[in-house]
Amino acid sequence: MNARTKPVVPGDVTAQLAARVLESNADAIPVAIVAEAKRALLNITGCALGGCTHLAMDMAIGALGAYAGTPTATVIGRTERFDPLFASLLNGISTHVHDYDDTTPRNYIHNSSPVASALFAYASVHPVSGRDFLHAFILGFEVSSRIGNATYPAHYEAGWHSTGSIGVFGAAVAIGRLLGLSHQQMTHAIGLAATQSCGLREMFGSMAKSFHPGRAAQSGYMAALLAQRGFTAGLHSLEGPRGFAAVEASTYDLAKVTDGFGTVFDLSYNAYKPFPCGIVIHPTIDACIQLNREHLLKADEIKAIRLRVASLVKDLCNKQHITCGLEGKFSIYHAAAIGLARGKAGLDEFTDDVATNPVLVRLRNLTEATADARMSEDAVEVEVQLMDGRVLHKTLEQSIGNLARPMSNADLEAKLYDQTKVIARDVANRVIDRCWQLDRLADVRDLIRLTVPPH
Amino acid sequence: MNARTKPVVPGDVTAQLAARVLESNADAIPVAIVAEAKRALLNITGCALGGCTHLAMDMAIGALGAYAGTPTATVIGRTERFDPLFASLLNGISTHVHDYDDTTPRNYIHNSSPVASALFAYASVHPVSGRDFLHAFILGFEVSSRIGNATYPAHYEAGWHSTGSIGVFGAAVAIGRLLGLSHQQMTHAIGLAATQSCGLREMFGSMAKSFHPGRAAQSGYMAALLAQRGFTAGLHSLEGPRGFAAVEASTYDLAKVTDGFGTVFDLSYNAYKPFPCGIVIHPTIDACIQLNREHLLKADEIKAIRLRVASLVKDLCNKQHITCGLEGKFSIYHAAAIGLARGKAGLDEFTDDVATNPVLVRLRNLTEATADARMSEDAVEVEVQLMDGRVLHKTLEQSIGNLARPMSNADLEAKLYDQTKVIARDVANRVIDRCWQLDRLADVRDLIRLTVPPH
Repeated sequence: MNARTKPVVPGDVTAQLAARVLESNADAIPVAIVAEAKRALLNITGCALGGCTHLAMDMAIGALGAYAGTPTATVIGRTERFDPLFASLLNGISTHVHDYDDTTPRNYIHNSSPVASALFAYASVHPVSGRDFLHAFILGFEVSSRIGNATYPAHYEAGWHSTGSIGVFGAAVAIGRLLGLSHQQMTHAIGLAATQSCGLREMFGSMAKSFHPGRAAQSGYMAALLAQRGFTAGLHSLEGPRGFAAVEASTYDLAKVTDGFGTVFDLSYNAYKPFPCGIVIHPTIDACIQLNREHLLKADEIKAIRLRVASLVKDLCNKQHITCGLEGKFSIYHAAAIGLARGKAGLDEFTDDVATNPVLVRLRNLTEATADARMSEDAVEVEVQLMDGRVLHKTLEQSIGNLARPMSNADLEAKLYDQTKVIARDVANRVIDRCWQLDRLADVRDLIRLTVPPH
Repeated sequence: MNARTKPVVPGDVTAQLAARVLESNADAIPVAIVAEAKRALLNITGCALGGCTHLAMDMAIGALGAYAGTPTATVIGRTERFDPLFASLLNGISTHVHDYDDTTPRNYIHNSSPVASALFAYASVHPVSGRDFLHAFILGFEVSSRIGNATYPAHYEAGWHSTGSIGVFGAAVAIGRLLGLSHQQMTHAIGLAATQSCGLREMFGSMAKSFHPGRAAQSGYMAALLAQRGFTAGLHSLEGPRGFAAVEASTYDLAKVTDGFGTVFDLSYNAYKPFPCGIVIHPTIDACIQLNREHLLKADEIKAIRLRVASLVKDLCNKQHITCGLEGKFSIYHAAAIGLARGKAGLDEFTDDVATNPVLVRLRNLTEATADARMSEDAVEVEVQLMDGRVLHKTLEQSIGNLARPMSNADLEAKLYDQTKVIARDVANRVIDRCWQLDRLADVRDLIRLTVPPH
């Protein structure tokens, strides 16, 4: 049977998805998709190295480390070892806590974080070849991104943080594939993932946001382990009348889950962030940095800032008064302030100290943001009024880092170096080399163990 | 400040709920509520003893036991020890897997399972007096039941299994109270519970259903531990525009969360199940058992069965063709068949063997169930046509076990004995005694350790 040409039966989409995942053959993945998967994994490894020392990580370890199992698994960038389920949770926090990970703009899911977080934990305790690791990653990414496409925008607009609530499917399928689940087991694993789907956008600006992909990684991994043992779930978890789509999205098209599976890959539509914050404020940052550099602006010259942005930007990032760095990542006002005043937006622009800096507070307060339903989420119009009467303008149609202006491999390497404080520069070089050569690694531990800092 | 007289500010309900939980004083709990809490805990202990050897438990331990932490905590009815978070998950499965636990019919939540499952695990590793245990249980029960009231029926009708998706709040608050969280920490704990809210009704009839209160117990416990360490969440997790109520219920009234807190207790509206299955099929079972006994019916005398039931019954329990015992728990057809053919509905009527018994298959197939929107969920009309031409009728307005015909303390004791195969009868006697004397126990471990079978 050539399953790929079989028409989609909507009443059976969960079982069909399980079949597509199991019939996938690593040799049939296009070279360009494997290359993009390596870029995604290099990027997420850098994010893990940058996030692994965040206070949220220390707190999660302090709270839950005493309850973890036999310490066999590695957490990227940390010296401690934990059981692989808890390591998945921690990798999920570190890869997402700076909001610096990749995004699939068609559904706004950060697919790599939950999928890679589970896979890195799994592969730190089981021998997995680079080829199998890449294949499982591509499948997990694809599954969560496709479920995202099928339920976007209704699911996200309802208030779900889909990186967690949908990422759990990708983690389950990726681990399930490495475990060699049967079709029935994979169907149950998808069900056990569906019924653990969670994560509210109300958490944006707090540590709980990065907990979402962590919990998704851990829950998806658990789903696969339970299914492997025969633990049962409903068989129609995606399409059933009380299943994921019906419960968590007001409108959806489940044909998008399976149509073209194995031929069209969502990794082709993946974007890498040049700035560690919500992707929809990137155009504002980009435009404001350009104005800062072109006019050598100083903060005290600025009298008023006016932004015209897409509606989603105000919906997501309308925090004018912020009290900590994590909130700044979702503030269109902070985006304008740091771009214009500091001419850059790296990890240092989103610390708690910078978030409460009086110069930036002043700039945020004199910023006005107008939502314009006709504007694309890649675009921005910035108008800056100066004390001397001049008015500066900058209009961007495409922001750096998006699909039209993608980060190069060299950009991604520089981004990894920039985040890597826990390991030496020469070790970071070797991490980068192994990411580019991932399909030739006999055991992914040859990459993972390089990320562990010296004791 | 007398906080109880302060009017509810809807924009602040999460913070107000945290305050109500922290200001609660064990001495102010009415004696009748403490007595009802003991009944609930005796009942749930019996359910744990009955469910602890279910295949779902063995599978969960087989799949996840190797990942559990230091084995300090007791699982009710089992000899193994695990870390308390995993023990919470397992207690949640055992207490709910037979669908024999208690129900609060105003919101159809099985509040005791998630709350007591976390508390029993916690109290097996920390010294907790019976008085504090009861107080934490009453608060946890109250919080989840009230959030249930505030979002019923929209949340449940949307397809959420509220025992999991809302039980997580009760577990978080109960453990948080024992941990002595501050107001800010309790607010974060509620947020971390909200953002882990999950569990789909599509799982009914599979093992994943009992996984829901298990995961709720574990996630709530985790939420409290994380909050204790300072891990942050959104502060408006219940009432915010992307918070629990807005995302998971189309209509809601959050005033019900806090109005009368500490004065009116939902434990007053708790019902205990005489039959191990979905509560809405209890009237049919009750009526059919009565017909069986009054007419000494035999299965092969029966030609046709006609049921008239409330709409929710068909919505929830319309499985005519079933393949396993767990599905039988949600089949109005199976309910009629076992009541009429066997004259009882104990654990033995919901095994996989009985579910596929040809005599019962025949009876299910000749059963017709009609939904009647005017009927109460406590009522049923049964008409049985016999081979000899006779037509029998039975109409019930109130089913045994519901609030109008409650199970007595002696009934609850008999129910516990009936489920207790893992410990000896004299030990079960002592379990019952300690439940009734719970408020006088210096350490709840004096109850918990009795449930552990001899090695």
